[in-house]
Amino acid sequence: MIDAKWNQREKSISRAAFDKALKNECNHIIETIKEKAGRLSKPKEIWELEDYLYQRRIEIDQKYDYRYSVLIRVFGQLVREGWIEMKELEGLGAEKLERIQVIAGLND
Amino acid sequence: MIDAKWNQREKSISRAAFDKALKNECNHIIETIKEKAGRLSKPKEIWELEDYLYQRRIEIDQKYDYRYSVLIRVFGQLVREGWIEMKELEGLGAEKLERIQVIAGLND
Repeated sequence: MIDAKWNQREKSISRAAFDKALKNECNHIIETIKEKAGRLSKPKEIWELEDYLYQRRIEIDQKYDYRYSVLIRVFGQLVREGWIEMKELEGLGAEKLERIQVIAGLND
Repeated sequence: MIDAKWNQREKSISRAAFDKALKNECNHIIETIKEKAGRLSKPKEIWELEDYLYQRRIEIDQKYDYRYSVLIRVFGQLVREGWIEMKELEGLGAEKLERIQVIAGLND
């Protein structure tokens, strides 16, 4: 694995970017809940909302994995999905940034 | 078991009362969701809402059991919790009504 070590500065940048992505995605979920709740009128829609939230919980739990061994892949996914931008990762080593871009599909 | 058989008229009254209770309880859940959604602002509140909905789902699934063998108990609980009133069960046999009242705690 290239560049597998994370120095203190990289760790600090990573933590901030990770937390920001999580906050952005949660804010999006909150907006979606408010919108869905506003339209709720039938009993079956209650359980559709429960399904939606349950799926988000699983997805968030799986996706937001802050282990340095998987963080490149995690950031690649978060950038691809738009929860953070590459500029928020500035300061990470060049090889890390390049791999994140590849996973994010920005080099296509 | 006393009065264990349900005639056609009783079945029809039961079905209507059961459906009405379910509708009332679901409407209450919908109102609660709208209220909780309106106040949502933090990520952890998303998962609190998910917990709330998951618990309601389990509770509703367990409570709304339309088998004639358990219906007296079910109606007793629904009356006790206020999802239907005794008047909505008028037309059931006198012994059934009495047992429902006891379970509902109306004879205390």
